[in-house]
Amino acid sequence: MTIVGVLGAGQLGRMLALAGIPLGMRFRFLDPAPSPPAAALGEHLRADWSHPGALEALAEHSDVVTYESENIPIESVRRLASRANVRPSAESLRLTADRLAEKQFVAGLGIEVAPFSEVSDRAGLDTALRRLGVPALLKTRRGGYDGRGQARIDHLSQADAAWQALAGAPAILEQRVVFQRELAILAVRGLDGEKRVYPLVETHHEGGVLTRALAPSPDLSPSLQREAEAIASSLLEALGHVGILAIECFEINGRLVVNELAPRVHNSGHWTIEGAATSQFENHLRAITGLPLGSTEPRALCGLFNLLGEIPPLAGVLAQRETYLHVYGKTSRPGRKVGHVTVVASDRAMLDERMRHVSTLISPQVHPIERNPV
Amino acid sequence: MTIVGVLGAGQLGRMLALAGIPLGMRFRFLDPAPSPPAAALGEHLRADWSHPGALEALAEHSDVVTYESENIPIESVRRLASRANVRPSAESLRLTADRLAEKQFVAGLGIEVAPFSEVSDRAGLDTALRRLGVPALLKTRRGGYDGRGQARIDHLSQADAAWQALAGAPAILEQRVVFQRELAILAVRGLDGEKRVYPLVETHHEGGVLTRALAPSPDLSPSLQREAEAIASSLLEALGHVGILAIECFEINGRLVVNELAPRVHNSGHWTIEGAATSQFENHLRAITGLPLGSTEPRALCGLFNLLGEIPPLAGVLAQRETYLHVYGKTSRPGRKVGHVTVVASDRAMLDERMRHVSTLISPQVHPIERNPV
Repeated sequence: MTIVGVLGAGQLGRMLALAGIPLGMRFRFLDPAPSPPAAALGEHLRADWSHPGALEALAEHSDVVTYESENIPIESVRRLASRANVRPSAESLRLTADRLAEKQFVAGLGIEVAPFSEVSDRAGLDTALRRLGVPALLKTRRGGYDGRGQARIDHLSQADAAWQALAGAPAILEQRVVFQRELAILAVRGLDGEKRVYPLVETHHEGGVLTRALAPSPDLSPSLQREAEAIASSLLEALGHVGILAIECFEINGRLVVNELAPRVHNSGHWTIEGAATSQFENHLRAITGLPLGSTEPRALCGLFNLLGEIPPLAGVLAQRETYLHVYGKTSRPGRKVGHVTVVASDRAMLDERMRHVSTLISPQVHPIERNPV
Repeated sequence: MTIVGVLGAGQLGRMLALAGIPLGMRFRFLDPAPSPPAAALGEHLRADWSHPGALEALAEHSDVVTYESENIPIESVRRLASRANVRPSAESLRLTADRLAEKQFVAGLGIEVAPFSEVSDRAGLDTALRRLGVPALLKTRRGGYDGRGQARIDHLSQADAAWQALAGAPAILEQRVVFQRELAILAVRGLDGEKRVYPLVETHHEGGVLTRALAPSPDLSPSLQREAEAIASSLLEALGHVGILAIECFEINGRLVVNELAPRVHNSGHWTIEGAATSQFENHLRAITGLPLGSTEPRALCGLFNLLGEIPPLAGVLAQRETYLHVYGKTSRPGRKVGHVTVVASDRAMLDERMRHVSTLISPQVHPIERNPV
């Protein structure tokens, strides 16, 4: 019986456990929240990420420890790594948790990223703006996700406001590139170095939050998929990564420009539960426990909707064929990811029709930013 | 949040919970075993089936109560039904838990069953044997499953031994009919009376235990499937059943003869997790909670192997494409159902090849009776 320790007990931990329990695995979660989504599926150690006793309890009783977020303190992961098998490694976390280190790492491999500059103080922001121009995005180096920790600078006059919005946190400035669409690469590397890549996914964001995804991506040329696989392979190898790696990209004139990495299972891969031969959750667990990887081939066309804020009435969603509901067991809160719906179809026209229908059922939830301007 | 109470916390309860948690359901199990397979997925009330306090706790805190076995005391289910929504009903349980009542009920609907006679004492067995002839099967009316509670009578001289084997329990004698193969019908009826039927499944047993299944069944003519749907529809309606109903049949010269009913999710339906648009577990839960039923259409060809006795090394099984492992979290014991493997393929030749490979990996487990003659 393999015991998997997980730093974090959110929806990603929950879906990891749903995939791992049928493989005979048991789960232990460390999470400071009182009743997080994964708690129903394993033992829940309720403590801060850096609590020494909790980290020790997690290390001692787990065959392998993984993490479901890159916002875990790196020191906690290093402490765990000194006493337990931590996969992906602390180094995978370090390089992806800091936007500056991440960009430098990706660019250093010869992979294209949007032009960027380090910003450590107010004067540095002006220097960076002179170099990169506007429009640009000022982002905290750490801790931002789902559009948080970011400020747009469309005119130089917005520099002060952007700087104040980030409250002086170490930051980077990124050129706001013009792209045709956003695509995500989901890849996995096993303990023995074997690599597999899922087909590219087209992602749609609103206010920085993923709202919809299409998988495999429409208009996916073999050359674009090959480019994705080359990028994934290069990153997985350079990191010595074990587990799933998600790579968010822009498509710019037929080439891929890397935007962001996540060293974990990822929202853009939820479609794999129904839509791929092996789900991202199962493949992550296979990788970190040293099992052979499963096929990443798609079984059908999929459309994913995030449910933001609240779960719509179940009956309407479930009445439609091949429409799958995933509820995370969270309390409702405007804009919060509380679940997702995956729509499956064998052809694009059918998928479009089914997605149109689902969007009418959940539209009040998927456009929280338009409905609730802050 | 819907709370589902389940009488029994075995592998069926475990797979119900794995299907229901993503729908936002929570589970409470009543089971006397110390650490049953489903306990990791919900609250476990450890008590005898007939413990009044435990039944009360289950009724009080569950929105609906279901059962995963027909060997639950009918009195417990009736007691629950007086205070909670019990689905399927106590009547569905009563009619399927007693082989005599079941046969009379099925035959009374004009559905063909193997000729049978009630046997209440030793003299009654002789009368029944004169009427039905040999070969025949003497079966206890209650409590038998997986080949237990049965004795074959191939010659009249074996009558004494058969009667003693059943230790005087109320029984029925069944004519041992000659059949071409065994097929299972899996059907579901919703709270609103809607009915759906899965494609017929070809089942293979050894020593009374299901070892392998093919779904949808090979050589499945539209007329045979129509006959299956007519039988299912008639039984579901007559029972007023809510939930999954499994109907085990013999195929005899192109027609279906009903052998046995189970008012619950069933081993012959495990392939639906990967192989059908909606799994039997999700459809059972949709039915009992009043949600719309999901499509029962197959997504691919499937082969199922039960893992008996012990789990084979995971890596060998998982190295093969589209091969899915389900471990139940039970301790090993010769002949015990400890898991299953589902193999998926898009054509019959590929399925055969993959099943041949899997059978070499697990053959010591699937033939426990040949290896360990008792």
